[in-house]
Amino acid sequence: MDTLVLTGSDVAAIAAAVSLDRLMDEVIAELTSDLRLYHPATTRIYPRRGFEYQIPRVGLLEWMPLLESGRTVVLKVVGYHPANPPQGLPTVLGTIHVYDATNGHLAAIVDGVLATALRTGAASAVASRVLANPASRVLGIIGCGMQAVTQLHAIQRAFHLTEVLVHDLEPEVALSFIDRTSFAALPIRVAAQEEIERRCDILCTATSVPVGEGPVVSGRLLQPWLHVNAVGSDFPGKTELPVSVLRQALVCPDFREQAVCEGECQQLTAHEIGPSLDELVREPASFASWRERLTVFDSTGFALEDKAVVDVLLAHARELEIGTRLQLEGGRGDPRDPFAMVKAISASSALPREAEGVIASSRPTIT
Amino acid sequence: MDTLVLTGSDVAAIAAAVSLDRLMDEVIAELTSDLRLYHPATTRIYPRRGFEYQIPRVGLLEWMPLLESGRTVVLKVVGYHPANPPQGLPTVLGTIHVYDATNGHLAAIVDGVLATALRTGAASAVASRVLANPASRVLGIIGCGMQAVTQLHAIQRAFHLTEVLVHDLEPEVALSFIDRTSFAALPIRVAAQEEIERRCDILCTATSVPVGEGPVVSGRLLQPWLHVNAVGSDFPGKTELPVSVLRQALVCPDFREQAVCEGECQQLTAHEIGPSLDELVREPASFASWRERLTVFDSTGFALEDKAVVDVLLAHARELEIGTRLQLEGGRGDPRDPFAMVKAISASSALPREAEGVIASSRPTIT
Repeated sequence: MDTLVLTGSDVAAIAAAVSLDRLMDEVIAELTSDLRLYHPATTRIYPRRGFEYQIPRVGLLEWMPLLESGRTVVLKVVGYHPANPPQGLPTVLGTIHVYDATNGHLAAIVDGVLATALRTGAASAVASRVLANPASRVLGIIGCGMQAVTQLHAIQRAFHLTEVLVHDLEPEVALSFIDRTSFAALPIRVAAQEEIERRCDILCTATSVPVGEGPVVSGRLLQPWLHVNAVGSDFPGKTELPVSVLRQALVCPDFREQAVCEGECQQLTAHEIGPSLDELVREPASFASWRERLTVFDSTGFALEDKAVVDVLLAHARELEIGTRLQLEGGRGDPRDPFAMVKAISASSALPREAEGVIASSRPTIT
Repeated sequence: MDTLVLTGSDVAAIAAAVSLDRLMDEVIAELTSDLRLYHPATTRIYPRRGFEYQIPRVGLLEWMPLLESGRTVVLKVVGYHPANPPQGLPTVLGTIHVYDATNGHLAAIVDGVLATALRTGAASAVASRVLANPASRVLGIIGCGMQAVTQLHAIQRAFHLTEVLVHDLEPEVALSFIDRTSFAALPIRVAAQEEIERRCDILCTATSVPVGEGPVVSGRLLQPWLHVNAVGSDFPGKTELPVSVLRQALVCPDFREQAVCEGECQQLTAHEIGPSLDELVREPASFASWRERLTVFDSTGFALEDKAVVDVLLAHARELEIGTRLQLEGGRGDPRDPFAMVKAISASSALPREAEGVIASSRPTIT
């Protein structure tokens, strides 16, 4: 049994072959379907856990597990290291691992960089379709790193945007965002934060604001129908929105158990938290009246999103025959002999007598 | 930055090149050193967590994380599926992932099948060196699957064995064990369980006994100095030894927090549990008097062992130039542009005008 490996180049090749628009549309559709069908009895998801550290720099490495009962385990292992970009590496690096839940076989490893950006964008599109005003035209973006690119792309796939206003603490990052998103063929301009807050219909915050230094939004003079996707990668203690905004809004987490630990929901009590993303998707009509009012999608990123994007990517990889198949796991030959492959290699590369010696001698070493 | 991949064949090639004896000796030495230096302030280890299931068969998929502060994260993802061997797959399948804890980069993926068998054997050798009678000559083995092979090998590297008595519920598995371990050049014979219990100086239990069906040892007529390595892969509710044996013995877990959840220590209260493996290794003289008495190593398998074996394997892989280097992670080109590689592929494979269309068009799809 082999393991299908999709590198970053393979995922990019799939996106190039399929087109980014179709790929984003498919991830949005797959995630919508997965959310609609989600039931904890058949799909078990644990809140992610990981190592947070300050040495040598602020960072986090965590794992996000999902079991689809009797079928697969999807485990994304993902790092969040905001000091990475000046060194040429993305803030969010990761890989998604897919296991056969009938025998433990590692069926696939998929680079998680573009996949994470795609599914995080898709999640905002799914939430915005339920909660944002359908006539939304102006998108605001605060924080213009990698995740902001797919926020724009996904929201554009779901709304007739006419204008995009962006802001970043680093002016050159905001400027480069305009180049990075030229594919959108939209008027995109750097704006003061006040103008963004006052004018946008949909706002995406995608910042690396450090713990204790939020919020990144003032919350003054917002449009009454504003929908906010609070996306910035999440960390216990890190928040992007002021509690005054959250208390006026319907706040919908992607995955409640996780959002109360590291999302905007950290700032709320249990009864102040609204329905989760799967509830929104199952009954959008119940929440239609909120399209005229202030709403927040508390996006922490969760394993169902990773499953959706990896399912889409693997289906294309098989059809397009993209990727590398590795005989990764040992134990072939005799499933009860850990040395079977060693013996086979030794036997084929040396005289039988010497080979036996190479494998193991019988002299114990006492220390 | 690339990811070094060591497949099962690569690990076997390292073992063939280095020799199994030297490799086992090195893993024992590395683990001993890591245990001696282990301090929770610099090395954080979480008890493993995972998905247990009964559908379609009994199985477990779990992850075992370790952070060496400021250096690496080692994460083994491992499956335990006792119905695998008749289908030609090992009960224990897994891979070990090594991350750079300064930026989240996945530095290496190493097949975990032989590695797990090696390090589980090595752990028993380390514990036995402290707790077993140095004059031990007769090794007993109950449960003759893959893990039993490296139990024999590791114990043989540490003691002057003269005889090995083995037992398995499946007689053909016990018989095939003799062939699988012919490298040991020792008198190995299938024996009744009673004879094993009565005669052996060191006993290794390495069974897949189902939850609630233990113990696999009666505990009658044991040698007063018997040392037991209770190895069988662990599962909440699964135990191999009778509580009467545990209560007479010094019971030493590999990793206490984990052993109380899934090891023999499940059967004991906190004050009945002895020192952990790292304490044994740091102060072996303090426990020397136990070499004349009944002792148990409660081996659940823990992340420090995976780190030790992967460090040894990666050092050899680099020296021998074994393994495959993959550009696994995306995000090259521009760490803030998820589509940079897509654009590059599209630009190189189509006319500029068409390429732009392939990447993304600006037509939103409203659903």
